[in-house]
Amino acid sequence: MSDTMKPFMEPSSVAIIGVSRATGPGSNNVLENMIISGFTGRTYPVNPQADEIMGIKAYPSVLDIPEDVDLAIIMISRLEVLRIVRECIYRGIKAIAIVNQGFADADDEGKMMQAEIVRIAREGGARVLGPNTWGTLNAFYNFSCGISPVALARIPIGVICQTGYFLGRPGWAGKGIDLGNMCDVDFVDGLEYYENDPSIEVIFLYIEGIGHGRRFMEVATRVARKKPIVALKTGRQEEAARAIQSHTGTLVGRDEAYDAAFRQCGVIRVSAPDEFEDLANAFPTLPLMKGPGMAVITGSGGIGIMAVDLLRKYHLHLARLSPQTLSRLNALAPPWQKTDNPADIWASIAVGGHPFGEVFLNSLDALLQDEEVHAILVLYFQPMSQAEQTKLLDIVERGGDKPIVIPLDGLVAPEPTSALEKTGRIAVFPTIERGLRALSRLHERWQYLASIEQGA
Amino acid sequence: MSDTMKPFMEPSSVAIIGVSRATGPGSNNVLENMIISGFTGRTYPVNPQADEIMGIKAYPSVLDIPEDVDLAIIMISRLEVLRIVRECIYRGIKAIAIVNQGFADADDEGKMMQAEIVRIAREGGARVLGPNTWGTLNAFYNFSCGISPVALARIPIGVICQTGYFLGRPGWAGKGIDLGNMCDVDFVDGLEYYENDPSIEVIFLYIEGIGHGRRFMEVATRVARKKPIVALKTGRQEEAARAIQSHTGTLVGRDEAYDAAFRQCGVIRVSAPDEFEDLANAFPTLPLMKGPGMAVITGSGGIGIMAVDLLRKYHLHLARLSPQTLSRLNALAPPWQKTDNPADIWASIAVGGHPFGEVFLNSLDALLQDEEVHAILVLYFQPMSQAEQTKLLDIVERGGDKPIVIPLDGLVAPEPTSALEKTGRIAVFPTIERGLRALSRLHERWQYLASIEQGA
Repeated sequence: MSDTMKPFMEPSSVAIIGVSRATGPGSNNVLENMIISGFTGRTYPVNPQADEIMGIKAYPSVLDIPEDVDLAIIMISRLEVLRIVRECIYRGIKAIAIVNQGFADADDEGKMMQAEIVRIAREGGARVLGPNTWGTLNAFYNFSCGISPVALARIPIGVICQTGYFLGRPGWAGKGIDLGNMCDVDFVDGLEYYENDPSIEVIFLYIEGIGHGRRFMEVATRVARKKPIVALKTGRQEEAARAIQSHTGTLVGRDEAYDAAFRQCGVIRVSAPDEFEDLANAFPTLPLMKGPGMAVITGSGGIGIMAVDLLRKYHLHLARLSPQTLSRLNALAPPWQKTDNPADIWASIAVGGHPFGEVFLNSLDALLQDEEVHAILVLYFQPMSQAEQTKLLDIVERGGDKPIVIPLDGLVAPEPTSALEKTGRIAVFPTIERGLRALSRLHERWQYLASIEQGA
Repeated sequence: MSDTMKPFMEPSSVAIIGVSRATGPGSNNVLENMIISGFTGRTYPVNPQADEIMGIKAYPSVLDIPEDVDLAIIMISRLEVLRIVRECIYRGIKAIAIVNQGFADADDEGKMMQAEIVRIAREGGARVLGPNTWGTLNAFYNFSCGISPVALARIPIGVICQTGYFLGRPGWAGKGIDLGNMCDVDFVDGLEYYENDPSIEVIFLYIEGIGHGRRFMEVATRVARKKPIVALKTGRQEEAARAIQSHTGTLVGRDEAYDAAFRQCGVIRVSAPDEFEDLANAFPTLPLMKGPGMAVITGSGGIGIMAVDLLRKYHLHLARLSPQTLSRLNALAPPWQKTDNPADIWASIAVGGHPFGEVFLNSLDALLQDEEVHAILVLYFQPMSQAEQTKLLDIVERGGDKPIVIPLDGLVAPEPTSALEKTGRIAVFPTIERGLRALSRLHERWQYLASIEQGA
């Protein structure tokens, strides 16, 4: 892990400059949020109007703090920020997070002040996060210096973003860094921090623009070989690019250039935030998809067909099943039915009179054993007995490393049983389309790693 | 309403042929499901092996039923279906629903039997629903003859489909007809039934194929002028077209021809079932969108930009705000901020120190008054006081007929207050993308109606 980010993510002592005495919803009280997060390090509120804040001794200035400080968080009128940064550097603080807005995101005066902050910090050997940052969070260290309180969850997702949106929502990040205007600390610092972090399995980037393109590509290429990097880059449309100017003051760059660069680095580009949610589910849970061959198990011909119609959009296709698989699929079906792919198991249950568990497990086993099948979409599921659940674990284990996806808008029983989660190869998604989209990313990732291996 | 569908949707008396004595989950007991639905008409179970089923007198044959029967439901081995259909016609039954699979959906023998059923029914003056139908449901009549039990909800959605999927899921249809293999009763019959039905505001079609294209277009064109018709037509991909052959045995037809035909009739074509869910929410709740101009209210610049990036995909654009609107938006912002569209209200709250309600209502009012704004996307919402909620109703009322959309993945408080629903112009969607997609359909519908009016 890079040392740059350590004081921002795992500080022992934090000074908070401009902390207010107001607490509770809407107060944006960083100190309060830090306490809520369970932070056990030392905290030094700085506020010339207060002797103590939330029961913690307050100091009139950073200069009055008697001990070493790892991280300073500044949230104060923009006109005072330069003075405070100077004081932080004088006190030897090496990590400064500036929460305030009103810099490159605002007017020319703000842009000049931001440039001056960077100059002073460079001279003083300090690193600056922001301005206009929500802050950082690290569930593995019980630490968040966010401007809104957030329930920390130790999930293996590392986020680097240019908006608090991804950190303020609960359960989206195990670790998170909001770069805000990104005057100094940038995506490269974040990537290097997560690169060898064993608690992080997937890295999510929300990018408005990237400053040092060549360095980013170098580091992203290296990190993408170790763990999936998923990027949402906005500013595709001119209207959005204009809006970015007044959000973080970032230069957007040509969208096609980003497309090509991401592809070259092995970065997976997504286009809407709900895909982060799905990939936070898919990548840590499911094995990669080692080919484009889909099999579908359904209880309704119609919904199976709707799923098939979406395959090409996600660069997948219906697996052509072997004669062996077909004969196993048809073993429980009425004689007039020719079950193929999608495997409609309804007639075997309703006409054949076989219980759901028997038909489902028979079909699942047959499909998992077929070499042309690389993933399975399950559109019909009913509660199963304990014995059937045990058999399910067995079948999935034997079936090799193939992802199985259950979308909640299939004909699914309200609550997929916990037996599914235990398999480590089954994940639930809100809709068929989102399930297929997630599978296509597992396939994209597999293709990328295979291409690397061939190149090596 | 057409008389064809009446006995299928509002029967006084129903014979169920092949009803089993098994009840409960997995039994597919149509009689039980009919009782669960609250049906108060007469029911005649037919089963030569039983004297009574579920406490209701059973008859050995349709011929033994002493009274007139509106609707016969057949769920029996396919080899007996022809004989039963003959008996039904002999008894003067004019509406026959065949639940069984194993006809055009199966093998050549099944195809021949299906053709013979149609011939006999035509001769006897009876109409046939199916074969391979889930059944029908009508929440406004406490009636469902579905093969699975379903909680009826009196929502203004009329469904005509070729799969039970859309009827078996709770809350997707206020009235529903599964055409199955569609040997006789078809989309035209369903459209004519819903055409002047005051309880139905939107019509959803799930189409695998359409038999009588010219007649469909004639009727769809007429009905679409009265209420929105939304169609999901599968078989876009060759793989799906093949699967349809073994689902309902329907000829799929060229996809481009369907595209053109739908456009000509004013039918809105969608591509995934989750859009039915969204439009079942949007059309009955929201006013139409009378132009492509979007305004966005956000609490995070980043998420606002993500939304803007999606606009073009849905044929919408960011409204160019008038100087008046801009000056009102900026009234509460710090001097260095230039609030535009998206209207980022965060600084007014966090730096300006104004309460959420004040800033939000000021922005909403300003944007609703702007002539270039045709709809508003709200990406930041917090609970409001009773007084603020009353003011909200007022502002929305004054703002004219403009839809307001709140996606749950915006920075929204967990539960949008009921005050929102009361406005009749605000709806909540799961994601930003789905919210924008729904708005684009409200715009498409408005454009269609405007083009009709110009043509008239």
